[in-house]
Amino acid sequence: MKVQDLHLDYGIVEDILKAFLVNEIRKFGFNSIVLGLSGGIDSAVVAVLAAAAFGPENVTGVSLPSVISSQHSKDDAKALAQALGIKYLEIPISSSVEASESALKPAFSDKKPDVTEENIQARIRGVLMMALSNKFGSILLTTGNKSEMAVGYCTLYGDMCGGLAVISDLYKTEVYSLARWINQNAVSLGKVAPIPQSTLDKPPSAELRPDQKDQDSLPEYSVLDSILKLYIEDGLNIKAISAKGFDKSLVEDILRKVDRSEYKRKQAAPGLKITPLAFGVGRRIPIVQGYKN
Amino acid sequence: MKVQDLHLDYGIVEDILKAFLVNEIRKFGFNSIVLGLSGGIDSAVVAVLAAAAFGPENVTGVSLPSVISSQHSKDDAKALAQALGIKYLEIPISSSVEASESALKPAFSDKKPDVTEENIQARIRGVLMMALSNKFGSILLTTGNKSEMAVGYCTLYGDMCGGLAVISDLYKTEVYSLARWINQNAVSLGKVAPIPQSTLDKPPSAELRPDQKDQDSLPEYSVLDSILKLYIEDGLNIKAISAKGFDKSLVEDILRKVDRSEYKRKQAAPGLKITPLAFGVGRRIPIVQGYKN
Repeated sequence: MKVQDLHLDYGIVEDILKAFLVNEIRKFGFNSIVLGLSGGIDSAVVAVLAAAAFGPENVTGVSLPSVISSQHSKDDAKALAQALGIKYLEIPISSSVEASESALKPAFSDKKPDVTEENIQARIRGVLMMALSNKFGSILLTTGNKSEMAVGYCTLYGDMCGGLAVISDLYKTEVYSLARWINQNAVSLGKVAPIPQSTLDKPPSAELRPDQKDQDSLPEYSVLDSILKLYIEDGLNIKAISAKGFDKSLVEDILRKVDRSEYKRKQAAPGLKITPLAFGVGRRIPIVQGYKN
Repeated sequence: MKVQDLHLDYGIVEDILKAFLVNEIRKFGFNSIVLGLSGGIDSAVVAVLAAAAFGPENVTGVSLPSVISSQHSKDDAKALAQALGIKYLEIPISSSVEASESALKPAFSDKKPDVTEENIQARIRGVLMMALSNKFGSILLTTGNKSEMAVGYCTLYGDMCGGLAVISDLYKTEVYSLARWINQNAVSLGKVAPIPQSTLDKPPSAELRPDQKDQDSLPEYSVLDSILKLYIEDGLNIKAISAKGFDKSLVEDILRKVDRSEYKRKQAAPGLKITPLAFGVGRRIPIVQGYKN
């Protein structure tokens, strides 16, 4: 099995994303940005790009902890916001989640908890983030990466809410590389590395149920991204991908996930495009100002 | 000013929509349907089509009243469900809305209520409807019409949540005509007219603030739909539409609304297509089974 090396120049990637960010958001008619900060790597990278492109004074990072959120998630979100000098809000979601679950209780009666309850949390976060976007006239950025968009490891109308997807054309392993590049570059310029080391080190988690890890549902990202790249960028089929040394049933499972989650990508926010094979329309067609309502 | 007659054969429209509904929903892998019932005309028509196409035992209608909802909305929703013999749930949204507004209060501080609070209500309904969809494995139908999709009189991630838009290619005036046709046809077959007369008679309202009416924000639907049809179907510009006898500033305002709400349609559910100029991809590209998660 050859885990594919993705060979991006992260200096150029950072410059492209920052330029696109400014260009698109100005075109939409916004002057400020709001985004959720989970304490994870994706939102950290997007916050860094947003602060660098738009000025930290025009960016608000929001932590939306639930009863499941770990202390390190809240700490890392806050540390990032402080390092970047962006505005920071903490809006707990527990009471909203509980109220919605109570309202649904008579209908659900004896049904066991399942993905429904995970989605409620993600979607309540969507409601609250969109309310901040509406109230302050700030564009909500989505922070999903290409790996999770590919396999549908994201919640429609939840973490997918927003007006512009910033890193939806970067695989998760590439997001890590960009994060490391950002920190190294800051240090080499004599600045503080903005992304907390624990954000880089901890295992990725959606934190929608206790002790959940991305790798409970997905293979290691180095393996996942290699398979996705062979499928999406190189256009290979199951047989050809398996012939590269990947387990056939794993490849089948991943490709099935990609095909089955097309409906989510059809309703996704437009995404910045850095490869010729980005999902969706990319930013070819300007969407007119008016996202505010 | 010539208000355009839309000349559809509603017997054929009903047959096409029912056939598409069965076809698309089976293709997605669903055996049951859930939809919100507001007491208004759009959800009433979609409920009738869904019950006729899929069998009333496979359809659940949900009333989601707020403190703003009028008694007639709740009564009309329930009367429709009873006339159709579909399952019926009433899930009040007030406690969820209040919990979300409380969570946001420190961030909002002294900001006055605006469209934000209207959107919170619509989006909490979206959270609850998607939870029912997830828990019971039923597809959520969206009930927006072409007039509101055109001008963006709808809430992204709110009433726009769902896997399939059933009447997004019918203008509001056409929805009324289809509703009248449905009732007349039922009576002529010796059956009960399923859509309550008060649903047909009352002024359309989103009921997101007290005494709100669609016509507070929009011209009469006969005028709106005529302008929209000249713009969307006939491809005329402001000058040419005004020359048909419509007020130029009104035409400008409507066309601006259409252009500015493109971002909402980009994230809309796929819609059944009955004209060559439906919004979005229509149902040309099959979206694979998998909406359940």
